[in-house]
Amino acid sequence: MQDETVADDLFDPDRVAVVGATDREGSVGRAILANLSGFDGDVVAVNPSRERVLKYACYPDLGSVPDPVDLAVVVVPPGAVADVLRDAGEAGVPNAVVITAGFGEAGGEGARRERELVEIAEAYDLTLVGPNCLGVMSTRSGLNATFGPEMALPGSVGFMSQSGAFITAVLDWAADEGFGFSDVVSLGNKASEDETDFMRRWADDPETNVVMAYLESVVDGRAFIDTAREATRETPVVAVKSGRTSAGAQAASSHTGAIAGSEAAYEAGLAQAGVLRAETVEEFFDYARALDGLPVPETDAVAVVTNAGGPGVMTTDAVGDSDLSMASFADDTRDALVETLPGNANVHNPVDVIGDADVERFEGALDTVLGDGDVGAAVVVAAPTAVIDYGDLAASVVACQREHGKPIVACLMGGERVKEPVDTLEAAGIPNYFDPARAVDSLDALATYAEIRERDYDEPREFDADRERVREVLERVRERDSNQLGVEAMDVLDAYGIPTPESGIAESPGAAKALADEIGGDVVMKIVSPDILHKSDIGGVAVGVPPAEVQDTYEDLVTRARNYQPDAHLLGVQVQERVDTESGVETILGMNRDPQFGPLLMFGLGGIFVEVMEDTTFRVAPVTESEADAMLEEVRSAPLLRGARGRDPVDRAALRECVERLGRLVTDFPAILELDVNPLLARPEDEGGALALDLRLTVDPENL
Amino acid sequence: MQDETVADDLFDPDRVAVVGATDREGSVGRAILANLSGFDGDVVAVNPSRERVLKYACYPDLGSVPDPVDLAVVVVPPGAVADVLRDAGEAGVPNAVVITAGFGEAGGEGARRERELVEIAEAYDLTLVGPNCLGVMSTRSGLNATFGPEMALPGSVGFMSQSGAFITAVLDWAADEGFGFSDVVSLGNKASEDETDFMRRWADDPETNVVMAYLESVVDGRAFIDTAREATRETPVVAVKSGRTSAGAQAASSHTGAIAGSEAAYEAGLAQAGVLRAETVEEFFDYARALDGLPVPETDAVAVVTNAGGPGVMTTDAVGDSDLSMASFADDTRDALVETLPGNANVHNPVDVIGDADVERFEGALDTVLGDGDVGAAVVVAAPTAVIDYGDLAASVVACQREHGKPIVACLMGGERVKEPVDTLEAAGIPNYFDPARAVDSLDALATYAEIRERDYDEPREFDADRERVREVLERVRERDSNQLGVEAMDVLDAYGIPTPESGIAESPGAAKALADEIGGDVVMKIVSPDILHKSDIGGVAVGVPPAEVQDTYEDLVTRARNYQPDAHLLGVQVQERVDTESGVETILGMNRDPQFGPLLMFGLGGIFVEVMEDTTFRVAPVTESEADAMLEEVRSAPLLRGARGRDPVDRAALRECVERLGRLVTDFPAILELDVNPLLARPEDEGGALALDLRLTVDPENL
Repeated sequence: MQDETVADDLFDPDRVAVVGATDREGSVGRAILANLSGFDGDVVAVNPSRERVLKYACYPDLGSVPDPVDLAVVVVPPGAVADVLRDAGEAGVPNAVVITAGFGEAGGEGARRERELVEIAEAYDLTLVGPNCLGVMSTRSGLNATFGPEMALPGSVGFMSQSGAFITAVLDWAADEGFGFSDVVSLGNKASEDETDFMRRWADDPETNVVMAYLESVVDGRAFIDTAREATRETPVVAVKSGRTSAGAQAASSHTGAIAGSEAAYEAGLAQAGVLRAETVEEFFDYARALDGLPVPETDAVAVVTNAGGPGVMTTDAVGDSDLSMASFADDTRDALVETLPGNANVHNPVDVIGDADVERFEGALDTVLGDGDVGAAVVVAAPTAVIDYGDLAASVVACQREHGKPIVACLMGGERVKEPVDTLEAAGIPNYFDPARAVDSLDALATYAEIRERDYDEPREFDADRERVREVLERVRERDSNQLGVEAMDVLDAYGIPTPESGIAESPGAAKALADEIGGDVVMKIVSPDILHKSDIGGVAVGVPPAEVQDTYEDLVTRARNYQPDAHLLGVQVQERVDTESGVETILGMNRDPQFGPLLMFGLGGIFVEVMEDTTFRVAPVTESEADAMLEEVRSAPLLRGARGRDPVDRAALRECVERLGRLVTDFPAILELDVNPLLARPEDEGGALALDLRLTVDPENL
Repeated sequence: MQDETVADDLFDPDRVAVVGATDREGSVGRAILANLSGFDGDVVAVNPSRERVLKYACYPDLGSVPDPVDLAVVVVPPGAVADVLRDAGEAGVPNAVVITAGFGEAGGEGARRERELVEIAEAYDLTLVGPNCLGVMSTRSGLNATFGPEMALPGSVGFMSQSGAFITAVLDWAADEGFGFSDVVSLGNKASEDETDFMRRWADDPETNVVMAYLESVVDGRAFIDTAREATRETPVVAVKSGRTSAGAQAASSHTGAIAGSEAAYEAGLAQAGVLRAETVEEFFDYARALDGLPVPETDAVAVVTNAGGPGVMTTDAVGDSDLSMASFADDTRDALVETLPGNANVHNPVDVIGDADVERFEGALDTVLGDGDVGAAVVVAAPTAVIDYGDLAASVVACQREHGKPIVACLMGGERVKEPVDTLEAAGIPNYFDPARAVDSLDALATYAEIRERDYDEPREFDADRERVREVLERVRERDSNQLGVEAMDVLDAYGIPTPESGIAESPGAAKALADEIGGDVVMKIVSPDILHKSDIGGVAVGVPPAEVQDTYEDLVTRARNYQPDAHLLGVQVQERVDTESGVETILGMNRDPQFGPLLMFGLGGIFVEVMEDTTFRVAPVTESEADAMLEEVRSAPLLRGARGRDPVDRAALRECVERLGRLVTDFPAILELDVNPLLARPEDEGGALALDLRLTVDPENL
């Protein structure tokens, strides 16, 4: 990934060179030249063994082309691509699209060749798309630098895809649907330019209203999140990330050769990025169409206006299923409806103008409800009747949207008779669906984007932390066979300000007694050994040990551990302040490191909630205060933190801060591969707030 | 609702009379006559003030028509309908469709008039459709006895709808989509013939393959379940029940005037009936199309064959989202694929025949995977390429389906170029979708129906029960101000064989002591009063009372109750065997009575699970053994019953039997309006199995 914005001359070049151009029937080179016939600028061919290819002048290499080339489309065999890129770099060509396959996706030698391409691109500051891609397309310049599909219809959606075949399928379908694009990019292996680069480019492009991305992986999760947050202030991004399910992930990985990241990380990462995630092809285009054509609603409240009771009810159900709400009309609105509609009409939402309504009555009702300040958007649902003309109704809907500036989606239900009215609606950006649920889902996507656009991305908080102390603790894995640390590493939490009970590790009965005396009262004692993972199972934990029994207990614990596993490396016994776990709610705060998104935090309630009910939530770290807060809020068992069943609510601020601090710790130390604070006791404020009682972590010593 | 099968002469009459026929432009009577012009049989008009209406002979009343009339379509004003029906009865007309509105949906006088129509229909054994409906249609006889839409295309789907407008919208759309129907019925107010009657009729009809029902209510839930179970052995039933959400239910109720039942009851009832429930219009028709055109799969394992990697991954995700699974191929299958496909193809599922595949390679792979015994169904996913002809591919897919008799759904992705191939596919019953998720959902519906068709509906078990004792206990509400009973009614559980702790109600300290001595050991004591609902909150419960303290505790409990609520009616103190609740899992077994489906059982785990996590499951009672078992299985917290976290599994058979017995109790006693056994302690077998510890119920004395 490169940081600079992709140069405009990639999509709007003055001169394109096809390197590896031939006129051989059925060749990729010929197909590209044929597709370039509608291009606004100049096209030249590059091939050392020809003087002309089709109607184009042909040169032996890029350096020989007399005029500057802005874009080289490369279709030479894989072994020859590196030399072509070097030529391009030397000739000052700023952009190259490498169609040729046989690189990273082929493994081994191919992966080595791909690394070479990236080095050359970096050395010459060359924008490199691909390799192993279908090419790029831009409707503004008539550029179809692909070997496949016909030119897209012009539009204002930027579409990138990690699957070339999907582009071919989409463009064929879109031409029929009247769905247009500004630019289309086949990402291929994303050796250099990736989804983040194109997202940034289209965000900066006034001619692109919406970014669509079909992705099977994200190269750099953090960069993607940061870029998307900036991009989505003005330009919505809709993505399909396929390989969501375990079967799908396996299929994607065998298809692209990319390391599959976890779905939990993608889910969290894309949501934190402010990307609207579509799960199906239908959602993908429905969302994009709505975002491209409609204004963003100012409230989540929807008005439904219909001449058909049943479909009105189904539309209301769809609103109930969504994150939208049915608008409650102001008294004025209701009065106006009562005045203009017949007595058997329904003037509450959904407004039923009744089957004998003409367009005038329909439009009157729509105009009235759109004038209500609470109404953010409207759905117009109509069944065919003898008295309603869909053409006139479509024109009315367009006029109402223009008048009120609020988004409207339509369900003029029917077959042949809706075709022309739909053209009228779509010309004004208003989608029409036979299924009210799709119409409502489109509005829901708009409302979600309205929320995203207004998001205030606070920076993750910085905390005073004793990093040196953390490093010292983590370094201990070097002295061990295992790369795991347990309670003996509680200091890393302490160093980042996460409260832990008073404790220490004793290496003798006497030292244990001294520690216990210092702590005061009954204590908890736990065997400490990197080789014993499940301390309780072997009787390696003693709870509520009175001061007088500390020394004997020490001996007991050691004896049990030795009996259980004679060769275990015993580091001593942890002596810990006794904490009443009944005084709070046991939670779990964990982390694992995702190949794409990095440190992924997990939060859930302890015991059965995480283990049996799988009631967990994830965020990519570091997390902001509001993200940490949302984690505490969105687990299903959250009411228990708020004090369900007569208990006091836990100290939410303290718990949230633990999440933020842990997020910072795992961000600062990439050597921490996995970590679990379990339990993290969440207590009410007057019981002492949050307290980490146990810890397990895995360290990569190579990364220290 | 009537029990006999709807007469065939409703849809295939020899002679239809339109009562209220006129030639007045814009009138409903004229519209019906116009729509009847394509009818195979005879049409006559009935109107006392005409001699002819349009081209039809006109008679003053039904009795005057010289030849037998099989169907009367009634469009006279509401006040005149009853007389017309009486005439029809006297004239021996077997069927009447009442189009006229102004009955139950209008309330008051209309509801009274509607009851009169039902009485007449019953008296004359007249099949009555409506009132307040659009009419009926049958493509077999060319009968369009509606005042709205044009004639449907012929087909094998029976479609009924509680919304006339929805029929109009659907028929217009379906004509364009090539989607045909055998019969179409507008149910209107369902005064007599309802969804159950038409479901039964179409199940018996060899020309109807699938029943589609758009419903806003079900008249008689139990009859619907019983009929659907029989019907779905051969004929799948797909239903939209709208008003699913609370907003939708409110809208439906204001639209139809019907009492809204609970969504939980509809969800349970439709599932128990074996009805495939669609949530959206798109699902409704996708499911019906697949069920109409495709064979039912023998396994849930799906093979995906594609020439497009990305769409293949999306299809795999859709399978992962569904109840289907990705097939694992037998070694033979894989070997055969290896032999015929190029080296870079993927011979695992999803099979990627690679972008350069021609139709022959595609067909070979499809034929191979369909030959695998584990494969129940296939999805063919294709993107357009230079070497693949969609027309040929469609023909291959049809041939493969014919050859193997396994269902195939297609995603030939694209626009204009797919239109003819889609016609080829659809002619063979194979649906084609641009979105792989819709294709997979259709297969999922088929597989669900395969499961439904094979269901073995065991009869709910009968149990010995002391009904007289139950009646005696329930009768006690007559002596009270309140219609609630509490622990003092534990006898009703005992009478139905649901285990309860040893206990009794004492009305004096001495009696309490005697009871405690009889029980032995420490006891639990609870105040008994119909006026005190939350006993624990006022200190009305004492746990672990030693024998010596029983008399004092009695006094204490009574004093507390009097202080708390001086006017409360105290029935005494329950003295109960002390049960160690830690020895099992606390569950809740409840019931409320739904207006449509009757007694609805609820099961969930006690405490936070039901109250905070809303982790519950429902069934209409009485329940079979397998239904009771499924309830224990499908709550999210079910692993706790199976012995999660090192505990012994609970006695499942005992718990299941409690569910069955309670289901029988609430079925036998319609006077029980609501009931909660909370907690029902689920213990391991060697701890004593299931035990009901507390009870609350509401009784309708009118119904005893």
